[in-house]
Amino acid sequence: MNGDLDVIGMGNALVDVLCHESDAFLDRHALVKGTMHLVDEPRARRLYEAMGPAVEVSGGSAANTIVGVASFGGRAHYIGKVRDDQLGEVFSHDLRATGVGYTTATATTGPPTGRCLIVVTPDAQRTMSTYLGASVQLGPADVDARLIARGRILYLEGYLFDPPAAQEAFRVAAGAAHAAGRKVALTLSDPFCVDRHRAAFLDLVEHHVDILLANETEICALYQVHDFDAALRRVRRHCEIAALTRSARGSVVIGGDEVHVVDAQPVDAVIDTTGAGDLYAAGFLFGLSRGLGLATCGRLGSLAAAEVISHVGARPVAPLGELAGAWLG
Amino acid sequence: MNGDLDVIGMGNALVDVLCHESDAFLDRHALVKGTMHLVDEPRARRLYEAMGPAVEVSGGSAANTIVGVASFGGRAHYIGKVRDDQLGEVFSHDLRATGVGYTTATATTGPPTGRCLIVVTPDAQRTMSTYLGASVQLGPADVDARLIARGRILYLEGYLFDPPAAQEAFRVAAGAAHAAGRKVALTLSDPFCVDRHRAAFLDLVEHHVDILLANETEICALYQVHDFDAALRRVRRHCEIAALTRSARGSVVIGGDEVHVVDAQPVDAVIDTTGAGDLYAAGFLFGLSRGLGLATCGRLGSLAAAEVISHVGARPVAPLGELAGAWLG
Repeated sequence: MNGDLDVIGMGNALVDVLCHESDAFLDRHALVKGTMHLVDEPRARRLYEAMGPAVEVSGGSAANTIVGVASFGGRAHYIGKVRDDQLGEVFSHDLRATGVGYTTATATTGPPTGRCLIVVTPDAQRTMSTYLGASVQLGPADVDARLIARGRILYLEGYLFDPPAAQEAFRVAAGAAHAAGRKVALTLSDPFCVDRHRAAFLDLVEHHVDILLANETEICALYQVHDFDAALRRVRRHCEIAALTRSARGSVVIGGDEVHVVDAQPVDAVIDTTGAGDLYAAGFLFGLSRGLGLATCGRLGSLAAAEVISHVGARPVAPLGELAGAWLG
Repeated sequence: MNGDLDVIGMGNALVDVLCHESDAFLDRHALVKGTMHLVDEPRARRLYEAMGPAVEVSGGSAANTIVGVASFGGRAHYIGKVRDDQLGEVFSHDLRATGVGYTTATATTGPPTGRCLIVVTPDAQRTMSTYLGASVQLGPADVDARLIARGRILYLEGYLFDPPAAQEAFRVAAGAAHAAGRKVALTLSDPFCVDRHRAAFLDLVEHHVDILLANETEICALYQVHDFDAALRRVRRHCEIAALTRSARGSVVIGGDEVHVVDAQPVDAVIDTTGAGDLYAAGFLFGLSRGLGLATCGRLGSLAAAEVISHVGARPVAPLGELAGAWLG
């Protein structure tokens, strides 16, 4: 069984509630475009009441990534917590329907399944307000060391640092992966998330993480620099492998002495950027788990990101393995 | 207050669960393409388990129509039953967020909010399996005669004949509308639905309905003829106004001595036909409620149908009132 899974992801299990609004809506509700805000239940309710008609679709950053890995043809598993309610059923169904293993015990008490209220503005940017809900109940007891040992890469989202018990689960899982000789990958998730947990994230990046995923804003926030190149020089000293995304300007992938500057894959029209980073991670990690070169991993990331920003929603619609055909041989 | 509402709709309140599958999926589950099947809870569960990743979005035939009326700028109200659960909250939110009045009491016991499992095949056709859920609890007590009197047109879906109490609510509402001097409109909904309730529908069409909406298959099923023209000759004797849709071949609108053949509005690509009939009805009824000519009503129907088949989901994304600009003056 050891190593039979390509990627195992762990994160906050959320259902996305997507609607289209003007920039004025963001101002009115004091939301910073392109970022993620944590909201409590009353604020989530007020925001939802103010939002226009919406679409519900399974989300969660690491879950989107894991679905992307499965769409590439990878063997993938997810760890995250929902409640025994209708949205929890939706979340579980959509994971399993894409072939992702999902065995985390469902919460039978406590808050409902978490949701992410996503406002898409006319510029296709997404702004997220997350009510964590049942995700706060994810804890060390949900981490099965035998399962972790089966995955070549364990992928953890920085958002896990928001709920305290999940932070503990994060540490236990990372320890289990390393104990089994596996690689640990981390996404910094969001610049505000980096601000909330900078000391912990610096420690993780310097001592506990093998593969780092971040966008330009997040990596600059981590090192508190304004210059991408300065952040790049810092991270090279810390991580075995890092993939840093820069939206339309593509990504920079580093590993040991290697540095690759990878172009973004052009798209006809950017419809909704929700999930762009998650799907870049999917392509990159799938490539790594299959032993592909770093530049190819970056290109698979660009390909998956391009697919997901071409339509509404944070999970791929087209089968990524087919799109990637030539690169996968 | 009398006549301050353009259209009041009553129907089975459902949340759509939309996924894409091949034609083989329909065969495997004995589903007839393009139609609606009623399913009980265990069969709904089995179907859902077999379905790929899905999107949840508010639906319900008459509810889609009423949202369309509101999108045209009409004053609209909806009557239909959900439970006090997460999907019920989604359904209620999406109606109110589009400016539709919705005051039906929420069920606090009994089955959960109903849902419609919709399989979209590569030809953009949709095939529906409906679990009625809380809709079976809609009954005469949910019909407020004072509310009905406020609407210029009362729009009823044929699907209401499936749950027995809703059938009773249908009759009470139609009686209240006529007592207040209002018009009653009916959609035949689905050919299988017509087969289930043919005698009742014939009686309604001949004696109780002022405005009939149906597609070619449904109107032929009603009169048990194979020829659209034969059905047309029959219906002219029975209804004050009828709008009969024929997919890409447009629609035929009749009223008294008038007969209008209205072209379908061309679209770049048909993505998902879910809601085409519902949105045709929205344009047609909105036009009628505002006293527009029958040909213009038909064109507004074509315009709304063209919008909704250009994307996934059964409710308009673009504001129909703006699209219709010139026709509305």
